[in-house]
Amino acid sequence: MLSKSNPTAVAPPYKNIYSHTVEVPAGSSLVFTSGQLGIAPDGSISPDFKAQAEQVMKNLAALLAHHGVGVESLVRINAYVLARAQIPLLAQARAAWLGDAKPAMTTVVVSGLAAPDWLLEVEVVFSVEEARP
Amino acid sequence: MLSKSNPTAVAPPYKNIYSHTVEVPAGSSLVFTSGQLGIAPDGSISPDFKAQAEQVMKNLAALLAHHGVGVESLVRINAYVLARAQIPLLAQARAAWLGDAKPAMTTVVVSGLAAPDWLLEVEVVFSVEEARP
Amino acid sequence: MLSKSNPTAVAPPYKNIYSHTVEVPAGSSLVFTSGQLGIAPDGSISPDFKAQAEQVMKNLAALLAHHGVGVESLVRINAYVLARAQIPLLAQARAAWLGDAKPAMTTVVVSGLAAPDWLLEVEVVFSVEEARP
Repeated sequence: MLSKSNPTAVAPPYKNIYSHTVEVPAGSSLVFTSGQLGIAPDGSISPDFKAQAEQVMKNLAALLAHHGVGVESLVRINAYVLARAQIPLLAQARAAWLGDAKPAMTTVVVSGLAAPDWLLEVEVVFSVEEARP
Repeated sequence: MLSKSNPTAVAPPYKNIYSHTVEVPAGSSLVFTSGQLGIAPDGSISPDFKAQAEQVMKNLAALLAHHGVGVESLVRINAYVLARAQIPLLAQARAAWLGDAKPAMTTVVVSGLAAPDWLLEVEVVFSVEEARP
Repeated sequence: MLSKSNPTAVAPPYKNIYSHTVEVPAGSSLVFTSGQLGIAPDGSISPDFKAQAEQVMKNLAALLAHHGVGVESLVRINAYVLARAQIPLLAQARAAWLGDAKPAMTTVVVSGLAAPDWLLEVEVVFSVEEARP
């Protein structure tokens, strides 16, 4: 199981939505994802940030489900958005997905992504515990 | 061996050049690299983006070779460029290096790098399987 | 123990302050942190970049200490700043913390962070070796 910590020597996580550290125990597999986009399974993409953010979370959820795990297995979320004003919408979509899970997080505003209609991109690392022989 | 997946619940990877998830099995060593630059072994750097991108791939290849592995061991590639218009040139240099390997990838456009003549920086995570006793 | 390398086929690390690769041996736990901010334990934040950078390093040091390890256990440092001109101040604060440790590093200039008074954000990965039964 992942071990999360927020030592008292450091101010609490901003808005209390993430953990300062997440430790992956030895004997776990780690899964790294590509940056996920707001593209629906049919290839369409909404011009709306909120819709893209919700689709990104659906895509990430599908990737975790494919590996048989849920949000409690998330280690770190790195989010890239194009405007700071959109971060609250990202936070809302992310919170709706995460529930009580509090992985490590970093969010930054970048100047662009690979295609002009992409408004955010989010990559994660998650763990899959393996039965040891 | 790394296990790559593209679940059907998520639209296929953009241009089919990467994998949505890459799983590193327990019992592997992971290697994290610093952001690699377009600097040649003699310390020179071309002002040309394409030349820098090709040099970055040579540098990454040398780092993997030093650890005795090839592109099939790449887990994730994170690329930082200064202009979206240059991403196709990055993609070309990267594809020439990767061949059929499809690690996880994220590419973002940033406002700057540590020195003004650096036009891109690319970091990777790769795995080295260890013989288990 | 982490194994760091700078193969001669690649130009030496810029200013010789980091390692090109850092290998985490199998059987280690990995710890991923959230992006750390220049916020003091009492919740205050200086408007000064140098003060924020120094606080970030204090926060990171506290996170490592909480896990019982020091700078020699750092694998990679990813720093996000808002202006290239501030990177030398970041480097100074980081060097004062790191001493002779040379983890992998990537530093990029981004357009913004989640709150307007945050001038940098730094996340790290570090390892914790476990006693094997």
